[in-house]
Amino acid sequence: MEKEKTKKKVLVKEKVLEMPPVMAELSTVGKSVIRVDAYDKVRGKLQYGADIDYPGALHGKVLRSPYPHALIKKIDTEKAKEVPGVVAVLTAKDVPGRNGFGAIVPDQPVLCGDKVRFVGDGVAMVAAISEDIAFKAIEQIEVEYEVLPAVFSPIEALKPDAPKIYDKGNLLTTSRVEKGDIEKGFKEADIVLERTYTVPILEHAYIEPDVVIAIPHPDGTITVKGPMQAPFTVRRNIAPVLGIPINKVQCVQTPIGGGFGGKEDSPIDIGARAAVLAWKTGKPVRMEFDREEITLSTCKRHPMIITCKIGAKKDGTFVALEGTIYNEQGAYASLGPVIPPAGGVHAHAVVMLAGPYMIPNVKIEGYLVYTNHPYGGAMRGFGAPQVNFVHESLIDELAALMKMDPYQLRMKNCFELGSETATGQVLDQSVGLKDTLEKARSEFHWNPKWKPAPPVKELEKADKRKGVGMAIGWYRTSIGTYGDGCGVNLHLQEDGSVLIFQGLTEMGQGICTVLSQIAAEALGTALEDVRIVTPDTDVAPESGPTVGSRSTTLMGNAILLAAEPIRRSLLESASELLVIPMERLVIKNRRVYDRDDPNRFVDLKEAARRSMAMGRRMMGQGWYAPPKPSFHPETGQGSPYFVYTYSTQMAEVEVDVKTGAVEVLNLVATFDIGKAINPLMVEGQIEGGVMMGLGYALMEEVVMKDGMIQNLNLQDYIIPTALDMPDIKPIYVEYLNAYGPFGAKGIGEMPNIPAAPAITNAIANAVGVRIYDLPAHPERVYTAIKKRVAEGT
Amino acid sequence: MEKEKTKKKVLVKEKVLEMPPVMAELSTVGKSVIRVDAYDKVRGKLQYGADIDYPGALHGKVLRSPYPHALIKKIDTEKAKEVPGVVAVLTAKDVPGRNGFGAIVPDQPVLCGDKVRFVGDGVAMVAAISEDIAFKAIEQIEVEYEVLPAVFSPIEALKPDAPKIYDKGNLLTTSRVEKGDIEKGFKEADIVLERTYTVPILEHAYIEPDVVIAIPHPDGTITVKGPMQAPFTVRRNIAPVLGIPINKVQCVQTPIGGGFGGKEDSPIDIGARAAVLAWKTGKPVRMEFDREEITLSTCKRHPMIITCKIGAKKDGTFVALEGTIYNEQGAYASLGPVIPPAGGVHAHAVVMLAGPYMIPNVKIEGYLVYTNHPYGGAMRGFGAPQVNFVHESLIDELAALMKMDPYQLRMKNCFELGSETATGQVLDQSVGLKDTLEKARSEFHWNPKWKPAPPVKELEKADKRKGVGMAIGWYRTSIGTYGDGCGVNLHLQEDGSVLIFQGLTEMGQGICTVLSQIAAEALGTALEDVRIVTPDTDVAPESGPTVGSRSTTLMGNAILLAAEPIRRSLLESASELLVIPMERLVIKNRRVYDRDDPNRFVDLKEAARRSMAMGRRMMGQGWYAPPKPSFHPETGQGSPYFVYTYSTQMAEVEVDVKTGAVEVLNLVATFDIGKAINPLMVEGQIEGGVMMGLGYALMEEVVMKDGMIQNLNLQDYIIPTALDMPDIKPIYVEYLNAYGPFGAKGIGEMPNIPAAPAITNAIANAVGVRIYDLPAHPERVYTAIKKRVAEGT
Repeated sequence: MEKEKTKKKVLVKEKVLEMPPVMAELSTVGKSVIRVDAYDKVRGKLQYGADIDYPGALHGKVLRSPYPHALIKKIDTEKAKEVPGVVAVLTAKDVPGRNGFGAIVPDQPVLCGDKVRFVGDGVAMVAAISEDIAFKAIEQIEVEYEVLPAVFSPIEALKPDAPKIYDKGNLLTTSRVEKGDIEKGFKEADIVLERTYTVPILEHAYIEPDVVIAIPHPDGTITVKGPMQAPFTVRRNIAPVLGIPINKVQCVQTPIGGGFGGKEDSPIDIGARAAVLAWKTGKPVRMEFDREEITLSTCKRHPMIITCKIGAKKDGTFVALEGTIYNEQGAYASLGPVIPPAGGVHAHAVVMLAGPYMIPNVKIEGYLVYTNHPYGGAMRGFGAPQVNFVHESLIDELAALMKMDPYQLRMKNCFELGSETATGQVLDQSVGLKDTLEKARSEFHWNPKWKPAPPVKELEKADKRKGVGMAIGWYRTSIGTYGDGCGVNLHLQEDGSVLIFQGLTEMGQGICTVLSQIAAEALGTALEDVRIVTPDTDVAPESGPTVGSRSTTLMGNAILLAAEPIRRSLLESASELLVIPMERLVIKNRRVYDRDDPNRFVDLKEAARRSMAMGRRMMGQGWYAPPKPSFHPETGQGSPYFVYTYSTQMAEVEVDVKTGAVEVLNLVATFDIGKAINPLMVEGQIEGGVMMGLGYALMEEVVMKDGMIQNLNLQDYIIPTALDMPDIKPIYVEYLNAYGPFGAKGIGEMPNIPAAPAITNAIANAVGVRIYDLPAHPERVYTAIKKRVAEGT
Repeated sequence: MEKEKTKKKVLVKEKVLEMPPVMAELSTVGKSVIRVDAYDKVRGKLQYGADIDYPGALHGKVLRSPYPHALIKKIDTEKAKEVPGVVAVLTAKDVPGRNGFGAIVPDQPVLCGDKVRFVGDGVAMVAAISEDIAFKAIEQIEVEYEVLPAVFSPIEALKPDAPKIYDKGNLLTTSRVEKGDIEKGFKEADIVLERTYTVPILEHAYIEPDVVIAIPHPDGTITVKGPMQAPFTVRRNIAPVLGIPINKVQCVQTPIGGGFGGKEDSPIDIGARAAVLAWKTGKPVRMEFDREEITLSTCKRHPMIITCKIGAKKDGTFVALEGTIYNEQGAYASLGPVIPPAGGVHAHAVVMLAGPYMIPNVKIEGYLVYTNHPYGGAMRGFGAPQVNFVHESLIDELAALMKMDPYQLRMKNCFELGSETATGQVLDQSVGLKDTLEKARSEFHWNPKWKPAPPVKELEKADKRKGVGMAIGWYRTSIGTYGDGCGVNLHLQEDGSVLIFQGLTEMGQGICTVLSQIAAEALGTALEDVRIVTPDTDVAPESGPTVGSRSTTLMGNAILLAAEPIRRSLLESASELLVIPMERLVIKNRRVYDRDDPNRFVDLKEAARRSMAMGRRMMGQGWYAPPKPSFHPETGQGSPYFVYTYSTQMAEVEVDVKTGAVEVLNLVATFDIGKAINPLMVEGQIEGGVMMGLGYALMEEVVMKDGMIQNLNLQDYIIPTALDMPDIKPIYVEYLNAYGPFGAKGIGEMPNIPAAPAITNAIANAVGVRIYDLPAHPERVYTAIKKRVAEGT
């Protein structure tokens, strides 16, 4: 077995990034330049969606269902219509086109006609001349419901006698990964460990509330402006809802005050609804969700119930892994079912449950199930934090059982160049996972810090106990579907200034800065010469959504492609001006110069001016779609993503034995990110991501009761604050991605993923109790400690 | 001589248009589809520039010089600043960047610092909270002038003792065409005729007044919106005036209510000024010119004094032509000097004075001269109506002297395939001039209508007399400079709808319709699937200005290029769906079908959806620059333009012998336009152009007195009305242009060109008097008739 794997590894010839030598000497890329939007942000000059004051706009409000599952028997809007200042009161029958939207499957009604499926479902809408009047009118709408039995657990929902949320049943999709012979694998195992874990519903808790303004135009087009991570997806939904072609809908992205995946979905909801109101009234309509409405009605991180079993040899070699994922979709499909590359369905969670480990025999089954809860959508790491928590908890417990250093157990089994994943993908490039383990170990001082968990006796006498934990992870760059491409138009002006037209959206992650750096590098201009035009579907080519840690890599490549014809024009013009062959010229730092004699040069803007005067092409267009994924729906075998980022995180915690309170003292987070286009912003992504992981580990949870959220606002829904932040040490190594611009791969989501299990493993190390259900809030930790002490084990 | 020419013709192998066979079977192109903006226009829904109501905007006004030439000794703005509601009063020192703008040479001050050069020159500006207050404040600015002697004629201005408008002198440029041996040529002539002609200053008289709104943004960018024929030229000027890079200026075109070339220039003026006010105040600034201000301050059609001499053999063969053009530029360079293809300067008027005739010996000299009159700019036919009036009048008079039918004289000498022009260009394709002559002759019934002009005796006894006249002409497609390219981005959506991003502007000529037709044809969609996004420099790639009859041809080609990668994606997807090789597939009428069996097809939107899902390119970018022109600045030899449109016009007039009033009874206008993309709109262009030519012939003239315009508004500046319109018969033939989309070439300007001499030649035919000075208004015609009768000749 071992030999086969080694053989495989030897067979792999690493794909390497090929870059022209000029590109290899970098001027802007790789530098921690200041964010291009920094000044506007710190001066408070940036206009967010809510800052848009559109004179004469009406205000839209949605009446929402108070029941998780009910039939609508009658809606009486007469009283509401009589409220002075009300311009329109709409129900399902007023939706001009398709009464359904959704990022992937349009199963969510704009307004429910026959039944409601979760508390918060939209039932009617009002447009009025003020927000107050709209609220007042909403209260005057009378709805007669027939309450139906509801179901709130994916396991319950799959039972034959469960209430049917849809006629076709409650199972949305199934997916699987099957490799080797799982039974044989477990037979070969010397030790087998099986556990069940649950992870909660999470709210994105972005600071900026959802808001849009929808403006109908006399020519039959409509503009919808607001914060949106996926303006093209919003456009794609609004057009059929209004019953008009896609090219008549313009979606304009305003700067986003936090998205985390949530604003891939919510702008479809608020956008389609405001658009319908605007279309029906012929007036601009502004719609804003308040905090409670956001928590109530927008998508969430999927809660899951996951059973996982691992088998290992005595020496620690993994031989088999089996898992079952009950993934709760909630009321609507949203982004739950990923568009498959070749028929069928695959779920991110399913393909990643085996973790970044070489395991010859794997069987994973996943069920994506409708319930009467709010629906699950994208959230930083989509599907991965859930399964990462599972495999990293399980492996950590396995190491403890085997009395092995968990570092050693991971080093023994984890991916390296040439490894084969659970889906049979051979990793043929850019695999720096082991390096991240080593760097983290050395920086964290894992040895000697790590010691086995204390015996129960020691626990009894302690007030507080420290412990260390670790976790590793991997995460895809890009979505893993065929259509995952990015388009860009690039225009150089004759004064050397540059316009970039692209549709990926800035939401704090720094994409505008990174793309400007790549464009400046590619065109040899300075960063300040580049301006990115606000993403707008009437401006930018299809770029896909700003999700999946795809932006830098995919759009970066598109920019490099778009720059080529412009570079050529500049070289031709400079060659004429300098009387030096093009091949000898280098474009860099606002000059075009002779490679052999850098003192012979023309200014880039001279070359640009000549190109313009000569009618040479000063524009380029790039379309980059990553290497096509493959995936067999029956076996889950294939290469669902073209490259992965890797991470190791090590945390030290202090657990208050008397209260169960956990403080994370410090955390080392190491990454293989390909190439850091902007190191400072990479560190920012790491710190932010780790912080979210800490929230997942210790405190965040949407609390449900009978389908109703109990903690609707940020007073009750607790997220980490600056005071909760440990001392985070972000470190990265650069195993260049052969398919990335300058070797880059994604970093947006990875930091969020192994943080939670690193922390819960540290809790286990500190107090000897395992956390199987997130979050590890004080009550839960205290209860576990009390139980251990009571059991005396 | 004759033999040589014939030989040359035989040598030429005609360039022919190569189009894929699918493209040759047309669905949308060639059809008189309804204008895409028709409904919005007839319903009054289109928002013109003046319709933009920008809340909180300040109002800008310009203080203008009352003197044609004066030094500014002092400007006192104190009183103006004290007017309540005034936000800023600016003078030259307040211009943040370069204090100069201009379409080609930035010689016109935003605000004059040291001297003024024409009545209407900008001296100071005010921004106030209302237009009334701005007017009031303007009146409170005190300027001390030292009046200088002024000069109002190009011939006077070239004299050594003329007042110097610029330190470098009053001669802006000279240009020349020299071919063969002019002295030898005239020696060979049996008859020589020399005449001097004058043509007046013309106002464009577009109905929509100039207006802009300039909006400064917190991020250091600025938006300028308004009607503009050349948003990229406006942007290129505003950036240096503000001292910022070009990519920080956004120019947005609003629908134009008439431009005729005038709005190539005026939006630079009003745009730069509003931008400076907005930049200095940090507030949006609206600026609108009223009718008098437009007439006073914006560019005009160049007046010229032209002497021309022609020599012919007894049989009518032309052997020599000599000409001198005094072209009055007025106070600023504007578009006077055309950017030359290879150094030096060429003027459209100079290269075209020899007309569409084969003449072996030619010498033409042109002087472009500053005076203290308003400045000349682009106007429909730029330079051509002036010289066309000259050569067509001269040749007509020559025919009369030789007692030849002017039709026969023209047929003998005019261009055909293989002819060599005065600049030595061999016309190797698309020359349908003789066909237009024949078609016009037959349709107009030239013979027998034409008879020699009446003897003076008949004139004495007549009240009214009818006569017929003809003229022929040629006109370039495109500008004739190297940088004359058009860029476009084309995006196909997955529902088959299309967005076009381009920067040419709709001003009634129908470019949006024509480009939509070309895009629909190229992509196989329906016309209604195509939407052109409003031209905007933050949206569209550099497209050059909407001038020079270039739009259909150049942008049409760019669209065809941009469509190619999209067509390929559709073919690939359809090939997979139908399991038919790509080569056998045809995209047409919203379907992709098997050429061999049209019943086997997929809907285009199915192919589009699959392309999207497969990550295929759904966007294309086209950059089309026409074949590069050539021009030798010393001899004027070369090929300044790559293709020409040709026209013949024949007019019948009735002259009131007692008053000199002329009525045009009917007019046949025939054209070789390559390919009519939209026949109905071609006819519209013809009717509108002929009407303008009629105005040039009979009534239009900006009347000057001591540098001051005497007819500032449309009550005094007379243009033709519907009542003046003759029965016009528009006819076209299609000699396909090998470099045009579907064979098209330009039609926008040509109709305006031969109309005037056709009419004045008809006057000569009716009453035996020649008009050497335009317009042929009743006083002038009556005076000429009276003179003839008095002289008894």
